[in-house]
Amino acid sequence: MKIAVLPGDGIGPEIVAEAVKVLKALDLKFELETAPVGGAAYEAAGHPLPESTLTLAKSADAILFGAVGDWKYDQLDRPLRPEQAILGLRKHLGLFANFRPAICYEQLVGASSLKPELVAGLDILIIRELTGDIYFGQPRGRRSAADGHFPGAEEAFDTMRYTRPEIERIARVAFEAARKRGKKVTSVDKANVLETFQFWKDVVIETHKDYPDVELQHMYVDNAAMQLVKAPKAFDVIVTGNMFGDILSDEASMLTGSIGMLPSASLNDKKQGLYEPSHGSAPDIAGQGVANPLATILSAAMMLRFSLNQPAAADRIEAAVKKVLAQGLRTPDIHSAGTTKVGTVQMGDAVVQAL
Amino acid sequence: MKIAVLPGDGIGPEIVAEAVKVLKALDLKFELETAPVGGAAYEAAGHPLPESTLTLAKSADAILFGAVGDWKYDQLDRPLRPEQAILGLRKHLGLFANFRPAICYEQLVGASSLKPELVAGLDILIIRELTGDIYFGQPRGRRSAADGHFPGAEEAFDTMRYTRPEIERIARVAFEAARKRGKKVTSVDKANVLETFQFWKDVVIETHKDYPDVELQHMYVDNAAMQLVKAPKAFDVIVTGNMFGDILSDEASMLTGSIGMLPSASLNDKKQGLYEPSHGSAPDIAGQGVANPLATILSAAMMLRFSLNQPAAADRIEAAVKKVLAQGLRTPDIHSAGTTKVGTVQMGDAVVQAL
Ligand SMILES: CC(C)[C@H](C(=O)O)[C@@H](O)C(=O)O
Ligand SMILES: CC(C)[C@H](C(=O)O)[C@@H](O)C(=O)O
Repeated sequence: MKIAVLPGDGIGPEIVAEAVKVLKALDLKFELETAPVGGAAYEAAGHPLPESTLTLAKSADAILFGAVGDWKYDQLDRPLRPEQAILGLRKHLGLFANFRPAICYEQLVGASSLKPELVAGLDILIIRELTGDIYFGQPRGRRSAADGHFPGAEEAFDTMRYTRPEIERIARVAFEAARKRGKKVTSVDKANVLETFQFWKDVVIETHKDYPDVELQHMYVDNAAMQLVKAPKAFDVIVTGNMFGDILSDEASMLTGSIGMLPSASLNDKKQGLYEPSHGSAPDIAGQGVANPLATILSAAMMLRFSLNQPAAADRIEAAVKKVLAQGLRTPDIHSAGTTKVGTVQMGDAVVQAL
Repeated sequence: MKIAVLPGDGIGPEIVAEAVKVLKALDLKFELETAPVGGAAYEAAGHPLPESTLTLAKSADAILFGAVGDWKYDQLDRPLRPEQAILGLRKHLGLFANFRPAICYEQLVGASSLKPELVAGLDILIIRELTGDIYFGQPRGRRSAADGHFPGAEEAFDTMRYTRPEIERIARVAFEAARKRGKKVTSVDKANVLETFQFWKDVVIETHKDYPDVELQHMYVDNAAMQLVKAPKAFDVIVTGNMFGDILSDEASMLTGSIGMLPSASLNDKKQGLYEPSHGSAPDIAGQGVANPLATILSAAMMLRFSLNQPAAADRIEAAVKKVLAQGLRTPDIHSAGTTKVGTVQMGDAVVQAL
């Protein structure tokens, strides 16, 4: 089992170190190989996703990814900016299925912006298509406007697009996932305005015929953004495109109040996967030893379950994380009165202890 | 002063009737002319935006709009569905500047999903570009994919686009609005992925040179969706494109807990405007006399201020609405223990009384 370890920027190296520590504490044999990515790779090799890093990622069964990005790279040309690494990995490895759970941990209900009764017990799974849509659609660029309100004016444009097989395969992923959970899928679209998402809706409806045991609901993206605030627990599995999924999964994770706890997985059709925390690189707190490593540790658990076929080890990690929370250990982002404030390394050590 | 009154579907006729009642109670001379729109117009004339309704709208100084849409029209071909009326009005009248305040009324803080301390005193203004972006961009449709993951597969596509003058004029609207408020504009984009929104950001930065007294901040749309949940009061004016504005303005209005209170205005460069509540047609409660007319009444106030040059009358209406809230009157959507539950008509009567 080969794992590519890509720590990245900001707090990335610190939190990935703790996840690696936890993986090593399991009685399993892994080959772990580390490579630079993002801003760190730009500094080291002049490109956010160097050829050698991409080759390593392709050859691995799974990628443990920290985070990329820092304001200091804002002035670089777009192809050199840190986030191009993550877009490149998704594209080159065909990681089309992004799993973003939004779970509100019992002990952390108070950390949510939302009233406790709205989030206690929250457990939503957002499945975002990750290699299509307006993220990668061609053509895109700048030109002189051919028509519209200001013909002849300077214009920038992008192309939103989805093919039938792209929609069908992500819909299947969502229906399969729902079967193992609450048996309900909400497909989020904007069929009232966009051709792409009328087609999305049509194909989801057709694909649903193979999953009569799963309930299917359709919701416009603007309404979904509202319902997530109003009654998040009404959702089970949400499936949507790349752009809407970007927005809604971040909204949903913030609702839980503990984005520092939320893992994510991005899989291709060979079950190769990239595993990363839902939060970002947080350059403002990098190097201070205060970042929460739990989202990354839980991402490692997802990796064991989805890509490495080690569900028992995944269960062990998840149980250990619950245990340290029950012990009252908290990094600053989730700390509250009556609990014990710990740093990144202490938190990782506690998880290893609890395994 | 000519006002086109377009009640529409669902609760539209009930709430518009109350706003008209309030307008008539002012000592001003209006010419009010009513026409069907949305599903009601489809039933009456076979089209959601009949030629006669569009002609009336164009000839008026302002449009008082209720709401459109009902599940019973879901099976119609897209060009005949109710929401095409609103898209058609925006396009044909060039209503490019959409103002969506998200205000949390002191007495209604408890109705929010968010903890009181996060929303008490909330007063954000979202300015959404309304006639460009992927809503109207050509080409769009279905075809066989020329490239991508599944070349040759059936594909649907849309075009996102913005020209320089479109971005510049909405940026100016935002900077001007911020000058009269908290002097801060957050421009929401996705410049890290989209050509359109890198251009958006560039043009906003250039336009900002004329408004050195206003602070300008840039935020990615996914982060904006999170920050609205985490710390909504950190925003003053948000400016963004049509698609992102659709999602974020609905999210923001739901945060207040009283979307039934929130008006909106959509203006063109001649200050002609369409005024409508931020909420929808709510067909589930139509005809029951329980809908909240206050968002529509407050939309009429915005109309007086922005299109009819009657700021004093607008102030009177807004003061009257505050008064009925202070009296404890509440429609069911905002009712809580200790307040008096009233219906649509009683609420309208109370506002007239309080004028
Ligand atoms: C960094 C950025 C390109 C990326 C995206 O938009 O997909 C990020 O927001 C995410 O959700 O992983
Ligand atoms: C009905 C629909 C076309 C419309 C939009 O997407 O603009 C609505 O959601 C709105 O925000 O007014």
